[in-house]
Amino acid sequence: MTMITSVSTADVRFQTSASLDGSDAMNADPDYSAAYVVVRTDAPDGHEGHAFAFTIGRGNDVQVAAIQMLEGHLLGREVEPLLDDMGEAWRLLAHDSQLRWLGPEKGIMHMAVGAVLNALWDLKAKRAGLPLWQVLARMSPERIADLVDFRYLTDALTRDEAIGILQRAEPGRAGRERILLAEGYPAYTTSPGWLGYSDEKLARLCREAVGAGFPQIKLKVGADLDDDIRRMRIAREICGEGFPIAIDANQRWDVADAIAWVRALAPFDVAWVEEPTSPDDVLGHAAIARGIAPVPVATGEHAHNRVMVKQFLQADAAQVLQIDAARVGGVNENIAHLLLAAKFGTRVCPHAGGVGLCEAVQHLSMFDFVAVSGTVEGRMIEYVDHLHEHFVTPTVVRDGRYLAPTAPGAGTEMHAASIAAHRWTAETGVTV
Amino acid sequence: MTMITSVSTADVRFQTSASLDGSDAMNADPDYSAAYVVVRTDAPDGHEGHAFAFTIGRGNDVQVAAIQMLEGHLLGREVEPLLDDMGEAWRLLAHDSQLRWLGPEKGIMHMAVGAVLNALWDLKAKRAGLPLWQVLARMSPERIADLVDFRYLTDALTRDEAIGILQRAEPGRAGRERILLAEGYPAYTTSPGWLGYSDEKLARLCREAVGAGFPQIKLKVGADLDDDIRRMRIAREICGEGFPIAIDANQRWDVADAIAWVRALAPFDVAWVEEPTSPDDVLGHAAIARGIAPVPVATGEHAHNRVMVKQFLQADAAQVLQIDAARVGGVNENIAHLLLAAKFGTRVCPHAGGVGLCEAVQHLSMFDFVAVSGTVEGRMIEYVDHLHEHFVTPTVVRDGRYLAPTAPGAGTEMHAASIAAHRWTAETGVTV
Repeated sequence: MTMITSVSTADVRFQTSASLDGSDAMNADPDYSAAYVVVRTDAPDGHEGHAFAFTIGRGNDVQVAAIQMLEGHLLGREVEPLLDDMGEAWRLLAHDSQLRWLGPEKGIMHMAVGAVLNALWDLKAKRAGLPLWQVLARMSPERIADLVDFRYLTDALTRDEAIGILQRAEPGRAGRERILLAEGYPAYTTSPGWLGYSDEKLARLCREAVGAGFPQIKLKVGADLDDDIRRMRIAREICGEGFPIAIDANQRWDVADAIAWVRALAPFDVAWVEEPTSPDDVLGHAAIARGIAPVPVATGEHAHNRVMVKQFLQADAAQVLQIDAARVGGVNENIAHLLLAAKFGTRVCPHAGGVGLCEAVQHLSMFDFVAVSGTVEGRMIEYVDHLHEHFVTPTVVRDGRYLAPTAPGAGTEMHAASIAAHRWTAETGVTV
Repeated sequence: MTMITSVSTADVRFQTSASLDGSDAMNADPDYSAAYVVVRTDAPDGHEGHAFAFTIGRGNDVQVAAIQMLEGHLLGREVEPLLDDMGEAWRLLAHDSQLRWLGPEKGIMHMAVGAVLNALWDLKAKRAGLPLWQVLARMSPERIADLVDFRYLTDALTRDEAIGILQRAEPGRAGRERILLAEGYPAYTTSPGWLGYSDEKLARLCREAVGAGFPQIKLKVGADLDDDIRRMRIAREICGEGFPIAIDANQRWDVADAIAWVRALAPFDVAWVEEPTSPDDVLGHAAIARGIAPVPVATGEHAHNRVMVKQFLQADAAQVLQIDAARVGGVNENIAHLLLAAKFGTRVCPHAGGVGLCEAVQHLSMFDFVAVSGTVEGRMIEYVDHLHEHFVTPTVVRDGRYLAPTAPGAGTEMHAASIAAHRWTAETGVTV
């Protein structure tokens, strides 16, 4: 009988604020950080499950403490039944009768649940000898549906509907796996567009992005309209007419501001506007979407659970859904998001960047292509060229496409040396 | 020059799960707990600011750690300018450029902001020699509006509209203060209706509640419909026809279940149904409200910030708004909720109970009566007769009404002996 023998954590922080990488209208000085967790067992194979919650610096220690709260649910538990029924693993962690109050299903505690679940998925995939996307894409429709907590979803998506969606995609799975392994999955890049960059750096990075084959770029906006117009003009000149340029306001505006600002930038041809206002404001996003149509609204990286995603889709408040691998209750809840998006016919373009978010979220989009939506039309995964070197199986992007990972696991394992080098303590702290 | 010299915390837990007090359909075994904070200064008056975030046991230590993260914003800061501009104090704490990611404005980190802000309000009121409700109700409309962060609210409520609401209430303030001091504020009681109680205990407590002068009681429902029908019948028989009996499902249902369940109980005359589904589900609550009309929907105790409250009112998803003193970003954000409710003409019946929630929230309703809505019509504060003995100035409820507190402060200071007796550590822990 194989048991879980330890759930250990690390507070890992990178001093990204020093270079203004990652600076935007709301997040002036992010230090990309991982509240990191490793699940170990007594199996002779030595496999470990690695994952993390992503934060931007201060408070990463509190996030780590929240992850440690879940240790009691796993220590000494038998591994096989747990990994065989990951829907039950979700319930075990997400429905703790006392910890639930700290959300419910939102914020630090919910991100902790996501980190631990994702570590279990990494372990499960390593034990299966497959990359996570393939583990998921080879499960039966019924077993995939078992992963999803349909509580609070049934007014928009029932279990039977979900199974129907998955069954319709089943015949094409093998073909799409081959396509994915041959061609990868489209990426777009945010690297040119951080607010802290000079016009010269913006221009150079735009040129490099187009040259590298990315089918879309994204600019951060929202601090100053005149600056945004100037930067958008530079990007448009360099990228050329018709090249998709998205903008990202990082929650900066109220409803009326968002509509006015986007209308002022619309003449430069805006591919989408991302996070125009509070990530909690479903009705506000819906009003903005009506006010700026046909420019689509993109959001979701801060949508804290499936109930929020459900509403964004019900209200047609988001025309592009940006799932995030480390914000919600892990792989399970993101599968709910993919199924909801398939139900509503909404395209999914995941949020990534940060540290490890590209590595993690690519598996979800690839699973979606093979086994859920069956399409990459209008879909692409964000890509930011930061901090990949710290991962054992880093994302590989070539010619503007994510190559399908083939290494076993969920992609979320950091090098031990990176953890050691960037481990934060109150004493050695570099970021506070 | 007076400075803040310390921000100290305590993890305080009460073993309420042993008696099934507080048991409901989602919270089977709550151990009412306070992540407690004390702000001290070097002023010779010796006044301290006391407040807390409320949790139900496990994770209270993580909540304490989140509060400690905010210490750096206060230590060594000059007291007078901070307390003179509590709107700025909100921004200082709620808009930390890195901690914000952990919400934003939700969950553990946002409750921590609320706890610290409420401690500052307690300090401010003690220094003024007035109960908090009077401190607030004597501020000018403009200064009250200064407390509110209107970001994300302006599509529903602008600063000018808020000032207008407050100005219209200004002429009657003095008269309503006198009424409040003479008559108190209506209360209703949840004490009879916890799920874990026997039918006999339910019947006895219903009888006692009516005898004690409460104008309404509330039953927990949602675990089993047959049980709920039997318990509702008992309560109705004892309370008599026409006596308001509310029901509380504590987030138990999906939309269709909620409508069916409430319709099955409606023949017993339901005063409101509380938290029928996920607290995040604005659209779901709106659908339920349409499906069960004229039974009103009550919610808000888990609405995690003003953006959620705004939407519940915009969508007519809640006909009764249940603010909570310790869930959101403190007094400031609750003033936004009161102003939003006044704008939409929605009655406010605060959530209370737990530990210290009655003590804290009464000040907000009383402020609302004097300076915002100017009415108690259809309004009452929840009352649960638990754990008041641990507070220095405990809530006093007589003949079904909260007496207006006259002691200086926000009511949120616990006895030092209670803190010492119920202080939790991993070693002495009684609840995990």
